[in-house]
Amino acid sequence: MKLIDFGVREDEKKYIQEWSKENDIEVKIVSDLLTPETVQLAKGYDGIVAYQQLPYDEKIFDTMNEFGIHVLSLRNVGVDNVPFDALKKNQIRLTNVPSYSPEAIAEYSVTGLMALLRNMKHMIRKIDTHDFRWAPDIGRELNELTVGVAGTGRIGRAAIKIYQGFGAKVVAYDKFHNPEIEKQGLYVDDLDTLLKESDVVTLHIPSLGKGHTLINETSIKEMKDDAIVVNTARGDLIDTKALYDAVASGKLYGAVLDVYENEVGIFNSDLSGSQLSDDLLDKVIKSPRFILTPHIAFYTTKAVKNMATISLNSMVQELQNGTSDNEINLDK
Amino acid sequence: MKLIDFGVREDEKKYIQEWSKENDIEVKIVSDLLTPETVQLAKGYDGIVAYQQLPYDEKIFDTMNEFGIHVLSLRNVGVDNVPFDALKKNQIRLTNVPSYSPEAIAEYSVTGLMALLRNMKHMIRKIDTHDFRWAPDIGRELNELTVGVAGTGRIGRAAIKIYQGFGAKVVAYDKFHNPEIEKQGLYVDDLDTLLKESDVVTLHIPSLGKGHTLINETSIKEMKDDAIVVNTARGDLIDTKALYDAVASGKLYGAVLDVYENEVGIFNSDLSGSQLSDDLLDKVIKSPRFILTPHIAFYTTKAVKNMATISLNSMVQELQNGTSDNEINLDK
Repeated sequence: MKLIDFGVREDEKKYIQEWSKENDIEVKIVSDLLTPETVQLAKGYDGIVAYQQLPYDEKIFDTMNEFGIHVLSLRNVGVDNVPFDALKKNQIRLTNVPSYSPEAIAEYSVTGLMALLRNMKHMIRKIDTHDFRWAPDIGRELNELTVGVAGTGRIGRAAIKIYQGFGAKVVAYDKFHNPEIEKQGLYVDDLDTLLKESDVVTLHIPSLGKGHTLINETSIKEMKDDAIVVNTARGDLIDTKALYDAVASGKLYGAVLDVYENEVGIFNSDLSGSQLSDDLLDKVIKSPRFILTPHIAFYTTKAVKNMATISLNSMVQELQNGTSDNEINLDK
Repeated sequence: MKLIDFGVREDEKKYIQEWSKENDIEVKIVSDLLTPETVQLAKGYDGIVAYQQLPYDEKIFDTMNEFGIHVLSLRNVGVDNVPFDALKKNQIRLTNVPSYSPEAIAEYSVTGLMALLRNMKHMIRKIDTHDFRWAPDIGRELNELTVGVAGTGRIGRAAIKIYQGFGAKVVAYDKFHNPEIEKQGLYVDDLDTLLKESDVVTLHIPSLGKGHTLINETSIKEMKDDAIVVNTARGDLIDTKALYDAVASGKLYGAVLDVYENEVGIFNSDLSGSQLSDDLLDKVIKSPRFILTPHIAFYTTKAVKNMATISLNSMVQELQNGTSDNEINLDK
């Protein structure tokens, strides 16, 4: 068996090489993305592993079929950028990595919150100028706060465990009740109640679809004074302008944003030295009351290792058994 | 009853005023420190509350005696800067606030660690320059690490609860075994074992005395590669030069320092615009692998409120009963 892995970043190489050694299977590592041109490199290989945010061109799959390659394993969750029809036409099966580390995201959401409660962004900037005064940047303690967890999937549940360790009061909301969280009696009846009762509202739910935000001018009015919003889920859950205004006016304390509604083309890009054309983002970055990071919550050694190895394991299953635990149903 | 509170910072005023209203006791608020000159303001008052890091002058206590004031309540823990003999000569009783929020310090130590594990200092600086790339700043997850807690007093135990919520493995060391921690089987036999087994070593012990460090060239050799040191306790527990060199050489991953062996005169001062004469501190501040803050772990709304109100409550006890729970034994 010979595999080829496309779009590999520097930090992924180590884990792919270790897997290759442990499993005694050749894996060619390619840093280029998978395109109609680069797919030529796959000739003679049994399966293709890839990860990219750009769309996969249909022509790739005609070539794969021509080369007798019938499995594409992705190293990530999302499959929106893969044209299913082209896969089906060429009898290509697709796998993803449905979960690589819910803890990575849960831990990051708490990290961002703690950084905000202790004014870390401002303190780092102050200390860089040699201003070592504490005041007026007094911190707040998490053990005194009520944390409202919106969404009790794997990530939300991992976050709940952490918040309970801090001694915070936790309330939760989800359309689907998890038995463990139900048993603990954490669920409130609706999102309104969650917003009303929480000092911290942390989002661990999927996008609600275009134009549907959860945090906006109306819902912010329901929230407690000095409340905090944490979003490591999807940028379009928040009307960022309304959130910024609420923090600037002093209604809300601040926010942790690892995602942003207009992040595409900015996050994970190097725009250093250039002005931001997005005024709102510029203000958010400047404000000490916003911990803004470029979609890095998932980005840990554990998560990257899992992305690298789970995708390869799925490929081996597919090639040996004709199917795998992580195969995507292309007819859905 | 009429009280006077010296050396009051802006962020303390609110809590003193609230206490005064709730208890219907007049409290005069003075921002100046307690000196032989300012003590004149105390004429006609029944008790003096104070907080300062500078030594209290002996002459203060002669004047207090003259004014018939026989209680000094401190808003902090330390009493090293009070001349006990002068108190005794003037029949003045002394109280302190032995514990205002162990959680403040425990939470901060974890905040600093998480900030380090997720490269927060470097990410904030990067984003300020509009560099939004993740790589190469990959994070590490706390749930995969072993945390060694040195010192299982109130702060260490509060930290242990938080680490357990994260799912980290905890080992602990203390000369005095706490029954709860003992029951959980967390203690290792000696500090050497703690250093050898831990990915994170977090210090919650008092100073070992002049010239005795816990983290130094010799002990660092015992530590795991890529280990992290967290110190929110006392600066003189660490040979900072040896720690810096170990991080710079790649032996250790980094450190969180909220205290520093040469912090006096620097921490809580505004040195902005000036060069630091301390080269080592300058290098520590510049390094993304050191989260250095100016002794702010204690500085939360809850802690400040407790310092303000516990000192006033002790004063009331002293004036009503001639003693209090927090009275210091001046003969020790």
